[in-house]
Amino acid sequence: MSYPEKFQGIAVTNPADWTHPKKISYDPKKFDDYDVDIKIEACGVCGSDVHRASSNWGPVKANQVVGHEIVGRVVKLGPKCKLGLKVGDRVGVGAQAKSCLNCKRCKSDNEPYCKSKDRVGTYSGTYSDGYVSQGGYASHVRTHEHFVFKIPDNIPTELAAPLLCGGVTVFSPLLRNGCGPGKKVGVVGIGGIGHMGILFAKAMGAEVYAISRSSSKKEDSLKLGADYYIATQEEKDWATTYADTLDLIVLCASSLSDINIDDLVATMTIGGKIVSIAIPDASQQLTLKPFGLLGVYISNSALGSRKEIIQLLDLVSEKKIKPWVQTVPISEAGVNEVFERMEKGDVKYRFTLVDFDKEFDN
Amino acid sequence: MSYPEKFQGIAVTNPADWTHPKKISYDPKKFDDYDVDIKIEACGVCGSDVHRASSNWGPVKANQVVGHEIVGRVVKLGPKCKLGLKVGDRVGVGAQAKSCLNCKRCKSDNEPYCKSKDRVGTYSGTYSDGYVSQGGYASHVRTHEHFVFKIPDNIPTELAAPLLCGGVTVFSPLLRNGCGPGKKVGVVGIGGIGHMGILFAKAMGAEVYAISRSSSKKEDSLKLGADYYIATQEEKDWATTYADTLDLIVLCASSLSDINIDDLVATMTIGGKIVSIAIPDASQQLTLKPFGLLGVYISNSALGSRKEIIQLLDLVSEKKIKPWVQTVPISEAGVNEVFERMEKGDVKYRFTLVDFDKEFDN
Repeated sequence: MSYPEKFQGIAVTNPADWTHPKKISYDPKKFDDYDVDIKIEACGVCGSDVHRASSNWGPVKANQVVGHEIVGRVVKLGPKCKLGLKVGDRVGVGAQAKSCLNCKRCKSDNEPYCKSKDRVGTYSGTYSDGYVSQGGYASHVRTHEHFVFKIPDNIPTELAAPLLCGGVTVFSPLLRNGCGPGKKVGVVGIGGIGHMGILFAKAMGAEVYAISRSSSKKEDSLKLGADYYIATQEEKDWATTYADTLDLIVLCASSLSDINIDDLVATMTIGGKIVSIAIPDASQQLTLKPFGLLGVYISNSALGSRKEIIQLLDLVSEKKIKPWVQTVPISEAGVNEVFERMEKGDVKYRFTLVDFDKEFDN
Repeated sequence: MSYPEKFQGIAVTNPADWTHPKKISYDPKKFDDYDVDIKIEACGVCGSDVHRASSNWGPVKANQVVGHEIVGRVVKLGPKCKLGLKVGDRVGVGAQAKSCLNCKRCKSDNEPYCKSKDRVGTYSGTYSDGYVSQGGYASHVRTHEHFVFKIPDNIPTELAAPLLCGGVTVFSPLLRNGCGPGKKVGVVGIGGIGHMGILFAKAMGAEVYAISRSSSKKEDSLKLGADYYIATQEEKDWATTYADTLDLIVLCASSLSDINIDDLVATMTIGGKIVSIAIPDASQQLTLKPFGLLGVYISNSALGSRKEIIQLLDLVSEKKIKPWVQTVPISEAGVNEVFERMEKGDVKYRFTLVDFDKEFDN
């Protein structure tokens, strides 16, 4: 059986051997009035996928399909869909599949922070009927229209995919904290998300400081548009050299253990903000000294709202921003490859799985 | 000898017996071109005075005079003073006596955050010539005109004093973080500073939430203008009751050990800010879980700028705000009394030392 009775996907069938996923078929969620069915054409590979598949964030369930940077074509619309999508539209789905859409947070463009039980992640989330959501390494996805976004025509599919989770996750704190002309913005951690941070902050008009441990990412960072590069483990006294400089830092590093928050604080202007978008291992905590944050704000940011995803897609379309993407055809072998290379950091800087029509039945 | 050769003050002469200060006379700092000499009429008693006198912030030097909420009359102006003060003016001095006035921070109304060696506290600070500054439990004080503020005529001297350190310290984060109509603002810790936080936040137009451990401060808080009172150790589920409510919290508690930051975060709206103005013991640290601050900002704020002190004095004058002050005549016995009562929290809510003309020679 295939769509619409069954979806197919590349799943973690054996959590103990998570790097060798297998092709499965599975029941989709019940089709609701506001749902959109999408035939998937590409899916970005997010660090979260690896955290989840490897049980780094708690035990993964067997037959979990991950992937939440999905691009495909609308093939079916629920009877109550009212946001203007049409069958055949090229659309995207990010890391969030549902929220209550009724609380103060949802009504103020803060759906990622909805605290109701109706908030459901694109995979590993639980719908009210108990169905556990399945992600985008798959033939199809079925998602509430509020979390489905039309992709502007001039953004190639493989470049659109990583915008939908990683991209908007770094864009949201940039946007909310005034990134723009006259602002000096640091991006700490130059990887899948951080490299997009450089691209977006530059496109938004800020002066951009790429910050990484070694100088190995320097050349790439400058190509991406960074105005300055700081190698924290190689430049003695960097925190003094750049004291009182930055208005905003977005912390994209996947681990907090190497980060000296006091040094980052020293580089900030008064009123400056340090926003972490990283979700490190649950065991990692950040210890702040009472005097350590004088005049500087620190926060943590989650995903981005529908409004922000649409703003990001518009920005990328208008400024013709090109994330650095490596494509890999989807298959059991392809997902094995991206999982193993993600673990080694062997990607510049984001994978997009492609060729879905060759792997899955129509 | 007396002024101008010598000043007199009530000093911690024996750090081991700091609660029994003695009257001394001492050399003033060298008179500089921009200095203002002030004959002191009153001085507020700040928690910092007790921290410093008791060696809680490191060993106090012998013969230290504390006090940095000073009100008095101008008796002499340096030849280059240009900020419009006149002999006879009633003026105030807060916790900061000097800064470089030349760096980016000083030039952007952030003098309290000046990092140069020229930043000098009103007491226990060291001037470039090595002179250690002496505070306001004294006959006179000599201060750079930038840190001397004319007091509006309708603010009584004993009420003006606590505005100059404690007041502006809570006013600055309120002002910088948009306290005003339509905003819901929490004040945690209802004491010398927190009670002024309630008064100012209310005068600025916000809806005010007083937050304390027990209900013992409830009646006073409501009289001060709080719209809501939360007793965190008596109201079960308060963090749930007030979830997603506050736009700003100013943390005025003198200890962080009783504060569950996760509960405070739960009460915040997305984008909300928690700003601590407390300077707890240096050993206390704040541990943040990586997930603990989703969408909420935390910061630490120091004093207030010249511009902010003038804004506060104008607000207090215009709105006829009345801090709750208990006056005590200055003398060895009077300072002993306020030190001992401050240690016990036996004050509602701020002491001002008065009757300086009876204690010190003219």
